[in-house]
Amino acid sequence: MQGLGIEARKASALISRASTETKNAALKAIGEEILVNRTALMTANEKDLDAGRNNGLSDPLLDRLMFTEARFTSMVEGLAQVASLDDPIGEITDMSYQPNGLQIGRMRTPLGVVGIIYESRPNVTIDAASLCLKSGNAAILRGGSEAIHSNLGLAACIETGLQKAGLPVTAVQVIEDTDRGLVGQLITMDEFIDVIIPRGGKSLIQRLIDEATIPVIKHLDGVCHVYVDGDADLEKAYSIAINAKTQRYAVCNAIETLLISDAVAKEILPRLAAGYQEHGVELRGCQTTINILGSEVQVSPAVEEDWYAEYLAPILAVRVVDGLDDAIKHINHYGSNHTDSIVTESYTAGRRFIREVDSSSVMINASPRFADGFEYGLGAEIGISTNKLHARGPVGLEGLTSQKYVVFGDGQIRQ
Amino acid sequence: MQGLGIEARKASALISRASTETKNAALKAIGEEILVNRTALMTANEKDLDAGRNNGLSDPLLDRLMFTEARFTSMVEGLAQVASLDDPIGEITDMSYQPNGLQIGRMRTPLGVVGIIYESRPNVTIDAASLCLKSGNAAILRGGSEAIHSNLGLAACIETGLQKAGLPVTAVQVIEDTDRGLVGQLITMDEFIDVIIPRGGKSLIQRLIDEATIPVIKHLDGVCHVYVDGDADLEKAYSIAINAKTQRYAVCNAIETLLISDAVAKEILPRLAAGYQEHGVELRGCQTTINILGSEVQVSPAVEEDWYAEYLAPILAVRVVDGLDDAIKHINHYGSNHTDSIVTESYTAGRRFIREVDSSSVMINASPRFADGFEYGLGAEIGISTNKLHARGPVGLEGLTSQKYVVFGDGQIRQ
Repeated sequence: MQGLGIEARKASALISRASTETKNAALKAIGEEILVNRTALMTANEKDLDAGRNNGLSDPLLDRLMFTEARFTSMVEGLAQVASLDDPIGEITDMSYQPNGLQIGRMRTPLGVVGIIYESRPNVTIDAASLCLKSGNAAILRGGSEAIHSNLGLAACIETGLQKAGLPVTAVQVIEDTDRGLVGQLITMDEFIDVIIPRGGKSLIQRLIDEATIPVIKHLDGVCHVYVDGDADLEKAYSIAINAKTQRYAVCNAIETLLISDAVAKEILPRLAAGYQEHGVELRGCQTTINILGSEVQVSPAVEEDWYAEYLAPILAVRVVDGLDDAIKHINHYGSNHTDSIVTESYTAGRRFIREVDSSSVMINASPRFADGFEYGLGAEIGISTNKLHARGPVGLEGLTSQKYVVFGDGQIRQ
Repeated sequence: MQGLGIEARKASALISRASTETKNAALKAIGEEILVNRTALMTANEKDLDAGRNNGLSDPLLDRLMFTEARFTSMVEGLAQVASLDDPIGEITDMSYQPNGLQIGRMRTPLGVVGIIYESRPNVTIDAASLCLKSGNAAILRGGSEAIHSNLGLAACIETGLQKAGLPVTAVQVIEDTDRGLVGQLITMDEFIDVIIPRGGKSLIQRLIDEATIPVIKHLDGVCHVYVDGDADLEKAYSIAINAKTQRYAVCNAIETLLISDAVAKEILPRLAAGYQEHGVELRGCQTTINILGSEVQVSPAVEEDWYAEYLAPILAVRVVDGLDDAIKHINHYGSNHTDSIVTESYTAGRRFIREVDSSSVMINASPRFADGFEYGLGAEIGISTNKLHARGPVGLEGLTSQKYVVFGDGQIRQ
């Protein structure tokens, strides 16, 4: 592992100053390698699938693991897309003269070496490698052991692509050993790694918080809310509240709790409950919700834990609140600072919600499901951060960079 | 300590949405309190000085501890200056429309609760409190035990100032207990504190790196360089190299190693050596340096450790290098990624130095001594960060903030 770190540090010095042209050539070459080696990659993937079936992996996990036609295409297209993004490195901003004639600004630089720890999806190997490469970072990738043959197959494609573009093959290193203890080593190699980005479940992320000596760009929970204000346009409220829960369930930017102002609860709740019922969503409501919906709709009483819950499933907690203040208080207390949206036509309510809700994305009259790097126009995404330091919200190329000060003088000395 | 954290979190919710007017009123009121309570503060400071003398504190430490006329004035002026800075909170940038009509941008927000750990200078209490206040953060301050009476005196002024402005007095809390074990508690209260900023020696910072579970904005070493290029204007080179070492010694942005291209070493080294000798600076040189300077100038041979050393004293390591590549390699290997400057008239050499030197500030034809928040026009500074994540280089108000995404829609839902 030490050796891996040393190699990554060396490669980082070279890739950090590689031209945009060279980096794009590598991305293109990796895509070509994936197409050329399709059969071999399929065979490697079959090995992982066989092992997974033998080890009793669940169907959803097997599904994530599998190379399909669509996933092949999307890996290759993803590489082309990252190549088409503007190169963030070297961009100078905020350049201005000081009274003494010094010209001072900031230049965007790579972070250095990025460690990425992820689970069974092998396509993350390509996503992560391409984003690190384009942003001039060296990468050390640690994928799930279930996907090891697929990942090593992809690693070979990356290696050849880097080589063809004249970049060091150690700019992207995939850890071959599947020993779990290695993660512990990886996250304490602060001499060689500048940041760790986990893409995985809560137990992995909690372990990183406890053990890592390297800064972590993390995302713990996605307890997102829609608040239907007393001044909401109820048509917008209906479609946003339904979309935010039912468009997909197992994603972090789907809502887990719906808040409704008591001013409109009686009017909109029955209609919403019918909509959720059509989608097979189980409702857990506060007492007022239950009272309004009466006995026609199946609502179980929500308990305190429901307000904290990230169901990632067709379950929704519903609470009638006493207006805007109450809604903001609920969100800042029970939420996970991820993404929250108000539905309102009130200028003042919108303005206050935006300012006072402390989440990585705050919205007015839009579905929280839009909170991702592609929808925000970042072009790509390595994850969504609920950190406040460094990157917050969807993390694209910019989140993999830093800024240094550049100072141009004419011989100025300090008095 | 738990109670302190809970109070800080509560205060953070209120101060994060305080208006600029209210925050400025508090800053002004604190300044007035300091002036009104001058005698009491002097008495408290005398207590600390007496205790320090009895405990055998060194003269420089006693000097740092002492309230002088000038320090009083500078505390009060500092408060007025922070009040005059633009309020960073709520600023929206990068706002643009996506094809689906969503308008997406970023809004600057406070970090939340900032913990600051510092040593014996009591004026840091006011600096830190004012910057946290202006940036809408709650602060927990932990000063050195030697300054406890002075700090508690200032804490009382802050409390009254906050009160007069109608802000919660718990927005700035000064820890009264001087037990060293409390630092260990403070740096693991990740539930209540969002970032720790240490202002102290290496041992404190190393302890934070090892033990803190909260992100740290840190600055470990200041091993800064001036590189005199083969294409340097030697007049500029002389004045910058002398200024960078001798203008002040015990500061992180003074240089510790001077690199000189072999193309100009013979011409400029004797003149520089004479200049340093006048200032009483001890030189430690590479073999070439010793050969060039001959027996007239006292130069001791530099050993490997000298290239890593942060002397913070009138000692300078001098190395003759084989041109630009060699200089960049030396700086990236031995330096501390703080501040480095090239002296050159060559367009190409300057361009490469700026891009390839991996430091928080890189300069052309300017003294590294300029690397600080005031000189960079940030208006104030809470420290200089050698982190790559979040704030890098001099940290002003912006470094105490985060950015969240704001999304304005018309009822958009995700397909």
